Parts: sequence; structure tokens; C-alpha cells
Amino acid sequence: METLSVALLPISGSRAYPIHIGTGILDAAELYRPYLAGGAAAIVTNSVVAPLYLQRIRTALKGARVAEVVIPDGEQAKSWQGVEQVVDALLAARLGRDGLVVALGGGVVGDLAGFAAAIYQRGVAFVQVPTTLLAQVDSAVGGKTAINHPRGKNMIGAFHQPCAVVSDVATLDTLPDRELRAGLAEVIKHGFALDAAFVAWLEANVEKILAREREALAHAIRRSCELKARIVAEDERESGSRALLNFGHTFGHAIEAGAGYGTWLHGEAVAAGMVMAAELSLLMGQLKKNEVSRVRALLKRAGLPVAGPALAPQQLIDLMAFDKKAAKGSARFVLLEGIGRAALRADVDPAAVREAIVAAAR
Amino acid sequence: METLSVALLPISGSRAYPIHIGTGILDAAELYRPYLAGGAAAIVTNSVVAPLYLQRIRTALKGARVAEVVIPDGEQAKSWQGVEQVVDALLAARLGRDGLVVALGGGVVGDLAGFAAAIYQRGVAFVQVPTTLLAQVDSAVGGKTAINHPRGKNMIGAFHQPCAVVSDVATLDTLPDRELRAGLAEVIKHGFALDAAFVAWLEANVEKILAREREALAHAIRRSCELKARIVAEDERESGSRALLNFGHTFGHAIEAGAGYGTWLHGEAVAAGMVMAAELSLLMGQLKKNEVSRVRALLKRAGLPVAGPALAPQQLIDLMAFDKKAAKGSARFVLLEGIGRAALRADVDPAAVREAIVAAAR
Repeated sequence: METLSVALLPISGSRAYPIHIGTGILDAAELYRPYLAGGAAAIVTNSVVAPLYLQRIRTALKGARVAEVVIPDGEQAKSWQGVEQVVDALLAARLGRDGLVVALGGGVVGDLAGFAAAIYQRGVAFVQVPTTLLAQVDSAVGGKTAINHPRGKNMIGAFHQPCAVVSDVATLDTLPDRELRAGLAEVIKHGFALDAAFVAWLEANVEKILAREREALAHAIRRSCELKARIVAEDERESGSRALLNFGHTFGHAIEAGAGYGTWLHGEAVAAGMVMAAELSLLMGQLKKNEVSRVRALLKRAGLPVAGPALAPQQLIDLMAFDKKAAKGSARFVLLEGIGRAALRADVDPAAVREAIVAAAR
Repeated sequence: METLSVALLPISGSRAYPIHIGTGILDAAELYRPYLAGGAAAIVTNSVVAPLYLQRIRTALKGARVAEVVIPDGEQAKSWQGVEQVVDALLAARLGRDGLVVALGGGVVGDLAGFAAAIYQRGVAFVQVPTTLLAQVDSAVGGKTAINHPRGKNMIGAFHQPCAVVSDVATLDTLPDRELRAGLAEVIKHGFALDAAFVAWLEANVEKILAREREALAHAIRRSCELKARIVAEDERESGSRALLNFGHTFGHAIEAGAGYGTWLHGEAVAAGMVMAAELSLLMGQLKKNEVSRVRALLKRAGLPVAGPALAPQQLIDLMAFDKKAAKGSARFVLLEGIGRAALRADVDPAAVREAIVAAAR
């Protein structure tokens, strides 16, 4: 067992938490023990992950009273109904305020279980055990939890930091190819938005990641977590620099909504969204043509879409208008000023947005 | 217009907020203006308060786009359904992350609207405009928000501090007598738990408060807020001293649950609970008989119950077992070590608890 610990900078005073990254660490009891002082825990997972890993987590929590909550697989679980199911189960298990919630699964499980932990008795501790690449590099880190609303994704939620993240690279062995690639989109995003050297490393190693070479995966996860952690520590509540992590997301969310949630995976939508954002950066005169080509080329090699769905550009633009990052009704865009250098722009010409969507489709 | 501002000590770094207490200040536009930079607000109120004060708040928010959410009157609104209603309305009004939620009403409205504000887009600003004595002296101050669950009160919630509290003493003119007295129970609680001089003042002025003399009311509210604010600033998340504010509440919650929610008002249950806690303090040898008599006498003069409902003591004890302040399954009690000096005790003999319940009923 190999454990890399990434200590976050302190957030809101005293809160910092370890991110353990390694192979076969899922059931390392010592990673959970510090949070079991209350003697009770609840594992929240879904029907796909439960048969694979639930028993191993149970074993790791030995000594504590452990409840299990198995939610249906899929994004639809991120609903009022889903959070009610989890909260009902926590109450039925008489989990106290000193209990622990363990979120075992991908982004949906982490977002839902994390939100339930945030509002259960005004907040209980939780550990993220992400089992998808997307969750390991993105959703499990940073403390954002949420459920969806028919009017928009992640419209209801809370900032609630986990007390630890346990990322076992071996769990990616069971991940479908399409989901691996979708997770890789966020890894690539971290590179283009924040770290040119990481982009160069990805350009040299993308095939190794797709082949699931564990060392390459562990490095990609670790570097993504480091980059994200740095930003989150600066701006936990997304009032400033945290928005840079949304590179590709303003377009991406519109693509997801426009195609119908679940049609495109989040990472796929973000991939096409990054190309649109790169094209927009080019149109705004702040990115070079060959840099846009690098964005496109790396995403293509990762097997990700570089053009949006068959929708009129205006349809995407309409869907962007109520992105929740919008300040005072006008959409802000995260654009690139170079490889690894994202920056916020509020003064974007709507005509340029349309042109960028068209350019990405070419 | 007279405005007393009580500045809280900073909470979690930079957050401190003013509590404005005065007569006729409900529609003072300058109290809301600092939080309207986003240009949009939603007033959440109930069907009883709306006809009385909604229009005046609307006027005070002039210049902003204002939505209204009117929930049913009563504790039942503090439910999943209630929070869904509020969140749906905020989304329908396209309130952004820079929008403001104004909670206009008593504790139910404040708890529900505050919780909705806490989870809407992971948290938006809100102003409390409490219109009951209970809310002005207790629930609107301190950042606790919550809804109920069939398995227990306030089981789902968040810590979310308001950006300001606007307590207009004139709104108490329309408050039913029974509710005024129930609010007074929490005022009296602040005295017995934290401030002997305030107890003496209450013993001299309780009739003036019941007669709704505005100066007496304003002083009672102000002192309650000061006492509560001091504790909350020390311990926002209730890991230590904040528990002292729960004097009378372990018994009180059990009384509310045992009698059936809504039968006893919260303040009434807390009043009887304080007598039980005082009797228990006497039995534990840390309070004098004449001090217990002072607790009982002041509550009686305030027209509050000093004995619990017609329930077997064991029934109340069973209901206490899952109070959410319980650590590791064993109930802790807030007892008095003297007038104005509450302290936590974890080593309470169950037989003494039963005896205290019996003693309170005598």
C-alpha cells in the first residue's frame, strides 16, 4: 500500500484535510479511525458500487456501528427524494452528531451524501471515497455538495468539506472506458486552466492514463488535487479565483442541459465546452491559434468530444443565461490567456460567444 | 425611529452582523440597502404576517426586483415540502447568488427561510425580520436554521448567519398574548442561564413586558441578544458553551414531542423544562431551594407553565434519549450552579432525572 497525503492549506481557520491517493488503500482502517470517535457511521453508496466495495469499507470501519444506504445508480439520485432517502436512513440508524458519513462512489454519491452530511443535524463529518476518476480529481475535493433541481444542476447544496478523501486508484479498474475519459476531461481542464507543465506531462502521458497505468493515474490525480486544493484554499466559497476551475463549464453546463441531462457525461460536455472557451479566447485576442489547437488535440487523443451537440448556438446561449455563476444576470466567462493561465472575463460580446460555438463545431 | 445596533463579535473570521432593535424600523430602507447590491430579493413570510407587514418591507426594498413567497402559518411549514416551496419560488424568481432572502415572521419563517437561503445555490445572503418575541430574542439570532423531520425537530438544517437582524418592537403589538409569554420564556432562560442581574431586572419588570411597554420590551430583547451573541461568538457550531443556551431544552424538547408538536408552544415547554432542570440541579446538590423557587415564581408571573404535560416521567425520559445534543448516546444536561450560572453535566443519574420531573409536577 502506498499513500500519498496531500495536506490542504487551512480553510476557514482550522480545517484542513488529507487526500490519500494510492493502490489498494480502500480498506485501510487507519484512514477512517480518526473520525470514528462517535462509534457510529453510515456508508452511502449506489447499487453499482455496493457489490464491488461496500463490504471492504464495512471491514475498514470495524468496531463502529455501521449503517448502509444504497441509492439508485445515476444522476437522478441527486434530487430532493435522494437526500430524503439518505437523511431518513441516517435518522433510522440513529446516527448522532458525532457520527460519520462515508460517501463511497462517484460524483453523484459524493455530492448527495456530502449534502446529506451537511444538513443532517446541521452538519456531521464525512469521508469521501471516490471510485471514479472524475470524483478523484474533482468532485470529491473542494467541499462542494449539491443536488439538482428541474430548473438547473446543483442549484441546491452546501459547502461542506470532507474530513478526508480516500482515493484508491485500483477502483478505477472497474470503471467503464467512457467514464474514465470523462474524468480525464477535468484533469486536462486543470492543466489548461492552471499549469502549463502539467499540460506538457499530459501530452506525453495521455495514452498511459487511458491504458490505466497506475503510476500515470496516480500522478494525474495527485497533480489535479494539488492544483484544485491550492485554488480552493484561496477561495473556498467561490467569490474569486475558484471560478477559474470552471474553465469550459459555462459552455459545458449549457451543453449538458441542452442535450438533456444524462445524454452527455459531465466531462464530455466540459471537453466540448473547453474548445468553445478556447475559441472564444482566440476571438477575444488573448490566445494563439496553435494554443487552441493544443486544447483540441489533447482532448481528441483522450477520446473526448471537441464539438457540442446538434443544437442551434442560440439555444446554448439561452441555457447559459441562468448559470448560477452569473453575477447580476450577465454571464462571465473563464477564458485562457495562455496554456495554463485561465482568467475571468465579464465583458464578452454575445456575438463572439455565438461565433466561438460555431468555430468549435468546425 | 430609534435603532440600537448590537455588533456581534466576529464569527468564523470576518462575519459579524448588526442587530437593529427599535420601534417602527421595519421599513427603514437603509437597513436593507447594504445587501441589495445584486438588485434582487425575495421576501419569505407566512399567511398571517403577510397582510400585516409584507407591503412595508416591499417598500423598504424599493429599487430591487422583489419576489414574494407566502408559506402557510404553523410549525408544519418547517418541512421538506416547505423548503421545496421556498426554493422553487426562488428559482422561479431567478434569484441569483447575489440575491437577498428576507425572512419576515416568527421562528418558523426564520428557520425555514434561513435554511432555504443556506442551501439555495450553496448559500445566499439573508436578513431576519422577526415579528415575534421568541424570534427577536432567540431564533433570529445565532445562525441556526432548520426544518423538522417526523423523527425529530430541527433534525435537518444548517448554520447560516443572517447578514442583519431587524427587530421592530412595534410588530409585537399584533402578537397574541400566549405567544408573547412563550417568547418571554426564552428571555427568562437567558437570565437564569447567564446573567443574575438580568434576572433581577426581569423580576422587577415582568409585568411591564406583559403590558407591552416598549422600553421594557426593547431592553429585554437587547439584553437577550447581547447574552446570546456573546455565547454564539464563542461557539458558533455548538461544540461547547453554546449548549448553555439549551437550559430547559432537553426536558422542553421531550415535552413538545410527548404532548404532540403544536400542542405546547416551544417557550411553554422550555418554561416547564427549566423548572425540571432547576429541580434536577437541586437534586444534584448544586442549586439552593430558594433559587429553584425564584425560577418557578418568575415563570408563573410570566403566565408560563411550571409543570409538564400529563405524561409518565418514563415517557419523557425516553423522548430525551435521542435529543440531537446527545453525545455518544448519553444525554447531557444543562443545569444551574446558581442564578445566572448554567453549566453542562454529563454524569446525571437517570433516577434523579425521573425525580426532578416528579418534583416539577408538585
